[in-house]
Amino acid sequence: MENLKAQTGLAILKADGDKIRQDLLGQFDDLCLMQCPIIEEIIDTQMLVYSNKVDFAKRCGLISNQVAQELVNDLGLEIEALYQAITKKQAAHSKQRD
Amino acid sequence: MENLKAQTGLAILKADGDKIRQDLLGQFDDLCLMQCPIIEEIIDTQMLVYSNKVDFAKRCGLISNQVAQELVNDLGLEIEALYQAITKKQAAHSKQRD
Repeated sequence: MENLKAQTGLAILKADGDKIRQDLLGQFDDLCLMQCPIIEEIIDTQMLVYSNKVDFAKRCGLISNQVAQELVNDLGLEIEALYQAITKKQAAHSKQRD
Repeated sequence: MENLKAQTGLAILKADGDKIRQDLLGQFDDLCLMQCPIIEEIIDTQMLVYSNKVDFAKRCGLISNQVAQELVNDLGLEIEALYQAITKKQAAHSKQRD
């Protein structure tokens, strides 16, 4: 039974991470239209909430330290790549306008 | 053993809630010097992170729905009272200056 909560916790964290990925990817075009500071704030807040949840799961003993780091680092790297893609697309847009 | 994670989870949430209380109360004078929007942002972010952690604990089955609501509502009411005290003190300050 003890593992059930741990499995549930990990499954929830993975699903929440995927939701952040889908939300951000789904808003990709809208994000491209926004000013960079607003995008950064949206992404930073999502990562702040997510990393705190992962940290809580680790402190509860639901997940190991290694799994916690992987969950946060993987999502962070993917979001960084998304952010680069957004700023690249914005740069291309402004070149077209010039 | 199953209860151990639940007890740990609840203890962590209570400690995290107390930390927010202490942080905010400890910064009371500094908060009074800040512009309201900044205070609101600090408080909103803390509550956003905390309520997400509580929600996660509930979804993991570590705490009941009722306990989850009490944790967030109690902290929310206390922070609202603190925010009123800050804005009251700011109003008194600006009266002295006029």
